[in-house]
Amino acid sequence: MTALTDRAGAPAGELVDRLRAHARDYHSAHPFHLRMNAGTLTPDQIRGWVANRFAYQEAIPVKDAAILSNCPDVTVRRRWIRRITDHDGAPDDTGPEQSGGIEAWLRLGEACGLTRAEILDHRHLQPGVRFAVDAYVTFARTKPWVEAVASSLTELFAPDLMAERLAAFEKYYTWIEPDGLQYFRNRLFQAPRDSEHALEVVVEHCRTAEQQDAAVAALSFKCDVLWAIMDAIDHAYT
Amino acid sequence: MTALTDRAGAPAGELVDRLRAHARDYHSAHPFHLRMNAGTLTPDQIRGWVANRFAYQEAIPVKDAAILSNCPDVTVRRRWIRRITDHDGAPDDTGPEQSGGIEAWLRLGEACGLTRAEILDHRHLQPGVRFAVDAYVTFARTKPWVEAVASSLTELFAPDLMAERLAAFEKYYTWIEPDGLQYFRNRLFQAPRDSEHALEVVVEHCRTAEQQDAAVAALSFKCDVLWAIMDAIDHAYT
Repeated sequence: MTALTDRAGAPAGELVDRLRAHARDYHSAHPFHLRMNAGTLTPDQIRGWVANRFAYQEAIPVKDAAILSNCPDVTVRRRWIRRITDHDGAPDDTGPEQSGGIEAWLRLGEACGLTRAEILDHRHLQPGVRFAVDAYVTFARTKPWVEAVASSLTELFAPDLMAERLAAFEKYYTWIEPDGLQYFRNRLFQAPRDSEHALEVVVEHCRTAEQQDAAVAALSFKCDVLWAIMDAIDHAYT
Repeated sequence: MTALTDRAGAPAGELVDRLRAHARDYHSAHPFHLRMNAGTLTPDQIRGWVANRFAYQEAIPVKDAAILSNCPDVTVRRRWIRRITDHDGAPDDTGPEQSGGIEAWLRLGEACGLTRAEILDHRHLQPGVRFAVDAYVTFARTKPWVEAVASSLTELFAPDLMAERLAAFEKYYTWIEPDGLQYFRNRLFQAPRDSEHALEVVVEHCRTAEQQDAAVAALSFKCDVLWAIMDAIDHAYT
């Protein structure tokens, strides 16, 4: 909704540049990630990261359903819903071969030597991780849906980190079953597809300066969420 | 979550009986529906009903996404999400043959002589209908997710009304293109499948007397929502 007093926003290209510039705040630069990708983390540190990061994985479909519930545009919903099945698994996958990102993350945990039970009951979960994840879900529930979409745009930066992480795991952390790394492989193609759609939505709906500022702020907020998660993990296990 | 002081609930069979007893409050008994099924509504009255009821159809995926967003159980989400694709259409259906309940209802409107534009812009929407629909969405957003699931159980009573309505439309309202009635035909098999799942969830999660009372109250609330919609339509077009 634009009013006569709204300042026009920048052209789409400039908005995209502003959003992409937030790559500098992405948690790939966090010291814990730098050590992970340099191969110097201990098994306990890897396990601590996997167990804590599960809380974020679990929250993704809940966050995406909140966006869906706040979005009045059926054409956007029809594409956005794919994110939920990507994480929860397809509706008909009820057998042992059920797929989905949550299941893939649990298998990563098992490949690292964690039990399914100790991941699911959150016994390792650090309060700072829980608070950051909850802040993200609350953002998606309570903010305008386009801002919540913009907050997902850290996916623009995810494939580089994911490719680097996959290489590091295969090279340095050979004590982890290679089958357990399927989550990272899936995200290599899911994240670009998802961020492309999110970027289309943001460019389409953020035409005023105020809307564009809000989109950039949402992405900045999301970088803070991811960084805070890494801080809490780093403090707990280092 | 049950506490030591919680009163145990009734056996599952009794809970189901209490829920089914709310058939008496279902809007199939509303005077406007009685006249619809007796074949005495005018084309303008049918069109008024179709245009107003569209607001309810549009809200269904938003309501179901709210339930999804409040539900921490991935196995429930994995089945519940089907309701959203049933209404919004499948993710890959972007062409002219896109399916889904919202599209089917728009085609019903066109078959009745309404334009797609006048349905989508809500120019016929009565305030009482809007308020009742909003109340339903707010309920799903803000109440415990199991109560929101229980509120969907009017689907237990829907197939009888739908079958009666389909017969009435084919017999009395022959000025409506028969192809336009596909929405009703779809719901004949969707509603029983959906209510079966919802009933499983409610029986599984409502073990205390307090939880069971809340489930029954939720269904009663939903009957009020549907009835209020019919009241507003009846007052506007009769």
